Amino acid sequence: MRNFTFYSPTEFVFGSKTEEQVGKLLKKYGASNVMIHFGGGSIIKSGLLAKVEMSLQAEKIRYILFGGAQPNPRSGLVYQGIEICKNEKIDFILAIGGGSAIDSAKAIACGAKYDGDFWDFFDGSANIIAAIKIGVILTLPASGSEGSHRTVITKEDGMLKRGAGNEFIRPVFSIINPELTFTLPTYQTAAGIVDMMSHILERYLTRTLNVELTDRLCEATLISIIEAGKKVIKDPFDYEARATICWSGTIAHNGILGVGRTEDWATHQLEHELSARYDVTHGAGLAVMFPAYMQYALDVDINRFKRLAITVWGIEDNPKAPKTVALEGIKAMKGFFREIGMPTTFLEIGAQERDIDFLVDKLFQGKDDSFGAFKTLNREDAKAVYRLACE
Amino acid sequence: MRNFTFYSPTEFVFGSKTEEQVGKLLKKYGASNVMIHFGGGSIIKSGLLAKVEMSLQAEKIRYILFGGAQPNPRSGLVYQGIEICKNEKIDFILAIGGGSAIDSAKAIACGAKYDGDFWDFFDGSANIIAAIKIGVILTLPASGSEGSHRTVITKEDGMLKRGAGNEFIRPVFSIINPELTFTLPTYQTAAGIVDMMSHILERYLTRTLNVELTDRLCEATLISIIEAGKKVIKDPFDYEARATICWSGTIAHNGILGVGRTEDWATHQLEHELSARYDVTHGAGLAVMFPAYMQYALDVDINRFKRLAITVWGIEDNPKAPKTVALEGIKAMKGFFREIGMPTTFLEIGAQERDIDFLVDKLFQGKDDSFGAFKTLNREDAKAVYRLACE
Repeated sequence: MRNFTFYSPTEFVFGSKTEEQVGKLLKKYGASNVMIHFGGGSIIKSGLLAKVEMSLQAEKIRYILFGGAQPNPRSGLVYQGIEICKNEKIDFILAIGGGSAIDSAKAIACGAKYDGDFWDFFDGSANIIAAIKIGVILTLPASGSEGSHRTVITKEDGMLKRGAGNEFIRPVFSIINPELTFTLPTYQTAAGIVDMMSHILERYLTRTLNVELTDRLCEATLISIIEAGKKVIKDPFDYEARATICWSGTIAHNGILGVGRTEDWATHQLEHELSARYDVTHGAGLAVMFPAYMQYALDVDINRFKRLAITVWGIEDNPKAPKTVALEGIKAMKGFFREIGMPTTFLEIGAQERDIDFLVDKLFQGKDDSFGAFKTLNREDAKAVYRLACE
Repeated sequence: MRNFTFYSPTEFVFGSKTEEQVGKLLKKYGASNVMIHFGGGSIIKSGLLAKVEMSLQAEKIRYILFGGAQPNPRSGLVYQGIEICKNEKIDFILAIGGGSAIDSAKAIACGAKYDGDFWDFFDGSANIIAAIKIGVILTLPASGSEGSHRTVITKEDGMLKRGAGNEFIRPVFSIINPELTFTLPTYQTAAGIVDMMSHILERYLTRTLNVELTDRLCEATLISIIEAGKKVIKDPFDYEARATICWSGTIAHNGILGVGRTEDWATHQLEHELSARYDVTHGAGLAVMFPAYMQYALDVDINRFKRLAITVWGIEDNPKAPKTVALEGIKAMKGFFREIGMPTTFLEIGAQERDIDFLVDKLFQGKDDSFGAFKTLNREDAKAVYRLACE
């Protein structure tokens, strides 16, 4: 086990009707002039926004509305948000939505406390040293951004998708009500499930030995997601299964499932190029890339893939053919992704084999010659993984 | 799944040599005038205290030493500590040790910011509304107090053992270096293992349905503790196993394994009377009480005990005889406690059957007619459980 710091100070308020507590929570965390940041009209139609506004009004908290967050959130909106925060002297940003609204909010929060271009934080030329406080009402369990200190933004100029983060942009509270996810489109629900599973797999695929406890916690969460995932796709109003999905998505990414080990994150990098290029939902892109990556990285540690296959996917052990068992596990994962309606090939997301050179060029732009902690990937490796994803 | 709040803001700094960071961490959290609180001479002999002092000196942090914390920490020491904190204008308490030093430190920390008698917080006549900040260097993984907001103190006048707690007394940081546990006496190591397992079992034994994820996380942690527990008893210098035990002890009690369900804590209450009366190590008392309690509470939910037996203790399923499977699980747990050198009967801890009336009188002093969320226990039930513990 490697040395680590585990720090997850966000207050998670979880359960039925918890969004009604938002006014009180904002007050508790000293908010007086709030920007409510969200995506499209769904939270208006559902009545959620009205409920939130009532809760703020009851606590006499001033607020303004700032909508427009979209999947794979863009820099343009962040610049707008920063401008508004500065002009309106906003002291708290409440993000309502999923990873898009939360990640935009995080970028706005640190950009508003910075004199330069916020993109400096994303291209590594500056460090975040202050941010407006952030709170969350989660409506789409997927990104884990409600409990993380990271944000991913796509720069429209060049369509570069990059991440940034530090403690200043971690939400101080996150309200998670599974009921708010009942009306999610099936595709978004499924993409969210793949996203949170990927967050665990990026941590599970490690070369660090002897982290049994973390391994078992990862497996326990993966099994729970798969079991509940099948249920929510069949019955979107299954509260218990929705609750399992919601809480799994949070702990998949608040750090607890990665302690004591070197994490990987290569597949996320491979996927980011797909969602930047084709604007495909991140989780759907991951459903395409993860089976391909795992197939390619199999030989790094067959026993790890075999263990995953047996423990999580229920494949029968065969001590004489570990590779077969491992491959059966990947097949089962691919089958599960298909079962919940996710794509698993380039074709299904509108990606093309002839784009691979372009994708790899973008992937390595401004980066080292290789990346990935589990299996080191250079340009040729990345091409090979993309090619496997075509099949 | 029930509504819940999960809030664990402590910064856990885990791993080899991490105690060397203590000066920097104290500085980060604004400490300038520190009371270092610890137990006996073991941290002096081992050189740990000298290392800590050097780290504080390097950051030019003023400090005083206050030793004397003992197992089942007593009110007398707390009163002394409060007096010193007030006189010396202490702004941070650094506890070095296990649950005893940490719990004393917590009681001192809130008592020093209160004009009345600190016991008011423990008999329920006042709420904690402020406390001196607390940091921890853990040397005995057991109580989970390094990541919890609770403290348990024994009032010498009447030997009443009672708990109190709120967010003000939660450590802001906890340093956990598995190497510091290498030289623990085997008995203390084993008692710590039982203590952390009990913290999980108190959460696992619930009547709340559909908390599969939390159930699986509990089982994953229990399995890891049992596996690593056997190793550390055999080889006290096994870093990886010690690390698993240390981190398990923390997450067993920081709340993550209890979310979404009503927890029990009846067995802890039953045990507190043993450690108050016989000054037995808390974990050893729990090793005596838990098998007895589980046997007595078996009929509340045989399937839950059966699941525990199969999943955690590796008992073979027998759909025709669930009660037999469940009882085999309890037997296996008792066997494990014995294997690691723990007592499992009254006799072994110097307790006597004729004291049961006295124990039950104490247990119900100032309490309702019954307690326990999993199985409601009245005076007769409590006597019956104690009687089972005699066997």
